[in-house]
Amino acid sequence: MTDRLEAQFAFLNEADRLKSVLRATTLCDGSRPENSGEHSWHLALYALVLADQAGPGVDINRVIRMLLIHDLVEIDVGDVPIHSANGQAHGSADTQASEARAADRIFGLLPGDLAAELRALWDEFEGAQTPDAIFAKSLDRVQPVMANLQSGGGTWITYKVTAEQLEARVGTRIARGAPALWDWVRAKTAAFFH
Amino acid sequence: MTDRLEAQFAFLNEADRLKSVLRATTLCDGSRPENSGEHSWHLALYALVLADQAGPGVDINRVIRMLLIHDLVEIDVGDVPIHSANGQAHGSADTQASEARAADRIFGLLPGDLAAELRALWDEFEGAQTPDAIFAKSLDRVQPVMANLQSGGGTWITYKVTAEQLEARVGTRIARGAPALWDWVRAKTAAFFH
Repeated sequence: MTDRLEAQFAFLNEADRLKSVLRATTLCDGSRPENSGEHSWHLALYALVLADQAGPGVDINRVIRMLLIHDLVEIDVGDVPIHSANGQAHGSADTQASEARAADRIFGLLPGDLAAELRALWDEFEGAQTPDAIFAKSLDRVQPVMANLQSGGGTWITYKVTAEQLEARVGTRIARGAPALWDWVRAKTAAFFH
Repeated sequence: MTDRLEAQFAFLNEADRLKSVLRATTLCDGSRPENSGEHSWHLALYALVLADQAGPGVDINRVIRMLLIHDLVEIDVGDVPIHSANGQAHGSADTQASEARAADRIFGLLPGDLAAELRALWDEFEGAQTPDAIFAKSLDRVQPVMANLQSGGGTWITYKVTAEQLEARVGTRIARGAPALWDWVRAKTAAFFH
């Protein structure tokens, strides 16, 4: 029991570092960059509140668990923004390999059964093929859009993002897991990109 | 549908403000105060990883949902620390009344069904009588202890907390929902309070 708790808290204490990983997106009031810990909380709350946007076969409790752990690899790798001066980095083979090594290290802090369970959940999120992962990915794309809308443009202004780029980088991913939600969000962005 | 999404996002955008509510506890590295948004994420992760410490009848998915929303009232009321120069404020009737008004306003932003569901979950957490709420409250007391241990004392030093005060204010609450966990955590604190 004691060794098990040592491992559980080695992981939970290490996870604390995600609160110091900064994202490109700001808070809704534009006051400062969002960190990946509070982002993960906000996304889990998105899943709870937007569960009725999920397609058939989605288990919201699994989506919430997935979103709680989806960014932990950023403790080692940092956030790789969708809109940036180095847009190629997002989803590149190099980034994927670095994130897999980070997952080995960070989930590897846990007792074996929990390490396997949470690593499988993270792999499923990254794979983006199951209904739960597809919906989780949709929410992960919606939340920065809402933050940019609230803060007056945010990273869209910084990186001169066009409506077409937003559709390609973000909209298609949101629509894959939550088509009605993207219809609604896209309408909200129209005033900005008119 | 559109009106429903308006209400869902009125709530989700308002919730963003929890990231600007600062707690007395710092991050584990002591670098800055923790905010209540990232705290809520960390606690939900605690529930996921420490599920084996929960007693019979605890539904971890409900505990996670409870922890995701448990501090939203702080958007209006602020955090009321357990250890402070004004220790009487925590749990006082005045604080409880202010938090209930905040819950009316904040959960009231949601569509009726979701408002009722999440308000009932928050009431259950505050009531601290069901197995799920008792376990959630235990985790809410454990996490600042771990942060103080990591950062070298934190609020225990600021407010000259004794081992007896920690036992009374924190330990009894942790032990109520997770007795084996408190035994382990208390042993960790012994080196600090020797």
